Amino acid sequence: MHHVFTRYESGMMKRKLETCFSPALYEAGSHDNSIVVILDILRASSAICTAFANGAESIIPVAEISEAKDYKSRGYLVAAERDGYVLDFADFGNSPFNFTKEKVSGKTIVYSTTNGTGLINLTLSAYQTVIGSFLNIVALSQWLAVQDRDVLLLCAGWKNRFNIEDSVCAGAIAGNLMKSNNFTTICDSTHAAMDLWSLAEPDVMGYIEKAAQRSRLRDKNLDDCIEFCLTPGFTEKIPVMKNGVLVAGVYK
Amino acid sequence: MHHVFTRYESGMMKRKLETCFSPALYEAGSHDNSIVVILDILRASSAICTAFANGAESIIPVAEISEAKDYKSRGYLVAAERDGYVLDFADFGNSPFNFTKEKVSGKTIVYSTTNGTGLINLTLSAYQTVIGSFLNIVALSQWLAVQDRDVLLLCAGWKNRFNIEDSVCAGAIAGNLMKSNNFTTICDSTHAAMDLWSLAEPDVMGYIEKAAQRSRLRDKNLDDCIEFCLTPGFTEKIPVMKNGVLVAGVYK
Repeated sequence: MHHVFTRYESGMMKRKLETCFSPALYEAGSHDNSIVVILDILRASSAICTAFANGAESIIPVAEISEAKDYKSRGYLVAAERDGYVLDFADFGNSPFNFTKEKVSGKTIVYSTTNGTGLINLTLSAYQTVIGSFLNIVALSQWLAVQDRDVLLLCAGWKNRFNIEDSVCAGAIAGNLMKSNNFTTICDSTHAAMDLWSLAEPDVMGYIEKAAQRSRLRDKNLDDCIEFCLTPGFTEKIPVMKNGVLVAGVYK
Repeated sequence: MHHVFTRYESGMMKRKLETCFSPALYEAGSHDNSIVVILDILRASSAICTAFANGAESIIPVAEISEAKDYKSRGYLVAAERDGYVLDFADFGNSPFNFTKEKVSGKTIVYSTTNGTGLINLTLSAYQTVIGSFLNIVALSQWLAVQDRDVLLLCAGWKNRFNIEDSVCAGAIAGNLMKSNNFTTICDSTHAAMDLWSLAEPDVMGYIEKAAQRSRLRDKNLDDCIEFCLTPGFTEKIPVMKNGVLVAGVYK
């Protein structure tokens, strides 16, 4: 099941570009006409992009562990993790490396994360919600650049706090969109994100060293995938919410 | 009425330094042992620092316009403004240039701002709340560096959003504190603030150009004080909350 984005690019007014550094700063109801890009690059949004790159059919985000358990008993593949630890009944956790072609191709995956589901629910009233990461940043930026929609880059952060990794990814996307010349921004967060990206870009892996999440993942031996998560353009798939389920959006 | 800070500096453990980019991200109750520094540099916190530099006795922050009006009828000097406009009954608005020696020396000022009072109430459970700006950054940093307290830099932002000007000021203070070698931080916001400051420092006035508040003040012809607000070390006074009133803290 693919979602083929319709193309729209002529005679457009400049569209508004905004960045939200934390779900706690998201103004529900203010983005009904916007495309919201959810960024949670270490590791949920990178894992989701990888799953679709490897042929997953769809991903069902669920909030409650009991719900994930229920899906598991009905034969679904279940990714479920809390604070970095895979739940015992689950098939795998949040590492993109788990979502191999062998495991996910053609499959529907039930995905339960610490805060990802909350984020998706938060953006229910948005025009469209998509999932972003460095892995799909090239296709995502190209697609966003030619939609006649305002864009909000929504950083998942950590426990409602600002985090560095999602912010620099937002800055990288914002930079691409501003270069497209189709956007304008008076959003301080967007300017700050682009500036942080300008500092990170020469050595993203080195820059991410100062991120608290970097240390958290290292402490749990979950940091093997970080370099991969910072790889731009690994996939052209853009995960998009359709009727409560994530499917692979393709832009041609 | 001065508050003379007691000195404390020996055998200390490293203290925790955190930054909060918006009041909406402030975790009330998490900072009971911290000194909270409120930053609202364009223009409330700069105006308050200027008032004390020019000899104001104390500042009473009030939330409601009716309250400010009541104080006015009882003979107090009243600074009151909403969205950049001075309220008709008030003696002056938020520009630091209003708080001249002639007007404020020896006086108690009632101060009503768009969000300043809310911020002060938010931090009631903190160990101590002080007011920061570039104007008192030198004395403030020296004082904070030798207290045996964790520090939270609380950016006022704008309508709960991240703003650039308060964030770079937070970054400048954070940089000073980290240089003192008495602090440690695993706070992504603090790292980001310091990085933004590293970009702003060579030309702060130029950097602030991208701030939305810069444009807002220009549009209302209220931007004459911006360069002044970016002047480091104009005063050694550190406004500090004592029993619901701001007084000039002096550190020697």
